[in-house]
Amino acid sequence: MMNEQKYWSRAAKAAVPYVPGEQPKDRKFIKLNTNENPYGPSPRLLEIDFASLSTKLYPEPTVLNLRTAIAEQNDLSPEEVFVGNGSDEVLAFAFSAFGDEDHPISFPDITYSFYPVWSDFFGAKKQIFPLGRDLSIDLSIIPDGTGPVVIANPNAPTGIALGREELETYLKNHPERLMIVDEAYVDFGAESMVPCIHSYPNLLVVQTFSKSRALAGLRLGFAMGQKTLIDAIIRIKDSFNSYTVNTWSQIAGKISYLDRAYFEETTDRIIKTREKTKEQIRSLGFDVTDSKANFLWVKHPEISGMKIYEYLRSKGILVRHFSSPVITDYLRISVGTDNEMEQLVTTLSQLLREK
Amino acid sequence: MMNEQKYWSRAAKAAVPYVPGEQPKDRKFIKLNTNENPYGPSPRLLEIDFASLSTKLYPEPTVLNLRTAIAEQNDLSPEEVFVGNGSDEVLAFAFSAFGDEDHPISFPDITYSFYPVWSDFFGAKKQIFPLGRDLSIDLSIIPDGTGPVVIANPNAPTGIALGREELETYLKNHPERLMIVDEAYVDFGAESMVPCIHSYPNLLVVQTFSKSRALAGLRLGFAMGQKTLIDAIIRIKDSFNSYTVNTWSQIAGKISYLDRAYFEETTDRIIKTREKTKEQIRSLGFDVTDSKANFLWVKHPEISGMKIYEYLRSKGILVRHFSSPVITDYLRISVGTDNEMEQLVTTLSQLLREK
Repeated sequence: MMNEQKYWSRAAKAAVPYVPGEQPKDRKFIKLNTNENPYGPSPRLLEIDFASLSTKLYPEPTVLNLRTAIAEQNDLSPEEVFVGNGSDEVLAFAFSAFGDEDHPISFPDITYSFYPVWSDFFGAKKQIFPLGRDLSIDLSIIPDGTGPVVIANPNAPTGIALGREELETYLKNHPERLMIVDEAYVDFGAESMVPCIHSYPNLLVVQTFSKSRALAGLRLGFAMGQKTLIDAIIRIKDSFNSYTVNTWSQIAGKISYLDRAYFEETTDRIIKTREKTKEQIRSLGFDVTDSKANFLWVKHPEISGMKIYEYLRSKGILVRHFSSPVITDYLRISVGTDNEMEQLVTTLSQLLREK
Repeated sequence: MMNEQKYWSRAAKAAVPYVPGEQPKDRKFIKLNTNENPYGPSPRLLEIDFASLSTKLYPEPTVLNLRTAIAEQNDLSPEEVFVGNGSDEVLAFAFSAFGDEDHPISFPDITYSFYPVWSDFFGAKKQIFPLGRDLSIDLSIIPDGTGPVVIANPNAPTGIALGREELETYLKNHPERLMIVDEAYVDFGAESMVPCIHSYPNLLVVQTFSKSRALAGLRLGFAMGQKTLIDAIIRIKDSFNSYTVNTWSQIAGKISYLDRAYFEETTDRIIKTREKTKEQIRSLGFDVTDSKANFLWVKHPEISGMKIYEYLRSKGILVRHFSSPVITDYLRISVGTDNEMEQLVTTLSQLLREK
């Protein structure tokens, strides 16, 4: 094995890659494992014949049209917006742009599990702190430091959100420290930090088209912050790949972003379904956090997470189970359609009867 | 300024980004500056209504269908193929997977100018060697070392290609050393190293959909090599972004890759246009290398590269000029349609009459 790896760099040997949720190929599942949006993207996309749009030229490298659309809806200038190939790419660039050996990256022990992977990959030190007892993020126990703090808000996989005021107090009290707020799930009921951008040079907000805009397949994510922060991300991107966002995704993203009515209608539906399912699962005896995301974070006081996961899978319902010991009794269940969630609730009741 | 950058990492401060060719927005140019393909992609793409294909789910993370299509046409297995978001991303991952402080990366001083950028970004040492007098790559002067050798074949921006035998001799004589052959332009008349993959565990070949398949806008590139090499690249990719290739590009890439007849027809046309233009420009008194790529590498014995560049630009023709002192008298001119190249030749004759 050592010999087989003889051409590998230290980075390749040391890599502990992130493992994404399963994308099943073999059979039909009710797929509630990767927080995708059941309603699909804006129907206005169907008006475009993408194949007839030029692919022979390189994409516009700065994604200007889409950045401008995002900027206008958020009272920002295009120079305060960066668009990348999914928010994973945007976050990866941000970890490289703001973290290193002297700027350790702080984040909770239970959060998006790509954060430690990026820190290690880009050679940044990590300062990991525990969640509070109630599973929320306790900003008062973030270790002192000189590097960025990364807060997923709502947090994944707990779904619990912090309020804007609380985050603003941290920003105000720690002007020397950058805070990266990962708002992948913010559109399902949490408070966005975007209105604070002009007040805090130490605030970077990252959002995605994969969840609330149902464009996971097209890979679009974006960062918003004061120009100096965006400039650092651009420098990293241009050291890696000149054109990360393809032409069709740039166009589809703009159409989707401007269809505010469809966005509100579908996120509202998901929120309603979440709240209804939350109550139903709680009344079955499960512990369910007060998620503000498009997923539920669920555990049963007596049945292991693995057992529930396997039971649901055997009945054709795919949810996400994490093997990390602290959270191994929990499941993360994406919010699908009302019909899908009714099948979930029915199947969970069956499990309880059979146990 | 120092204060503005107070949140920046060392990597952000040190970045010396690659500068891609201009993508003009303001006016119509005959665009011969970024080696795009004038004929567009396979017309079979027009049969697909991409907007109706699901975007709400994440893309297939391993790009299996497209990898299988590429593997089958090249007598490889899918495990010997990696597909990324443009060959720039694939090369970036390879630089990270195989280069580091103990594995310095060797490449010529005149070649694709992203190579030093990636080396620096991923903290790999560089061993740069000069081109031969005739502007070709002289494999005999590659410095001894333990890290990968990167050869663009044909080389950019000279267009000059090495033969398979010569590269094979190097691979045979240096089994301890990885050779990355960047074949971005190979389909326009050079010999590919792909048939050698099963013979040499130290050979990685990188190709792109941006040039011969006219899909620059969709960002597709791929690496081929024995499984252990591909595995290292996958580890790096999964430390960075789980899903780099979007759903629509995966589908479009497969359709394009399987339309062999269109591919051959259009690359043949570009080759014929290149050869004709080469002769015409030579007969005007320019020095032109024997390019096997979809561009010409051109200099005039008496007129500076900058002057020719600016004259052409003033007449609506955009070509690529590099400011690096060694090559500042050259221009890289992409091969467009016959009509575009006739306008180029006419404009160059005008310049000579006016000088």
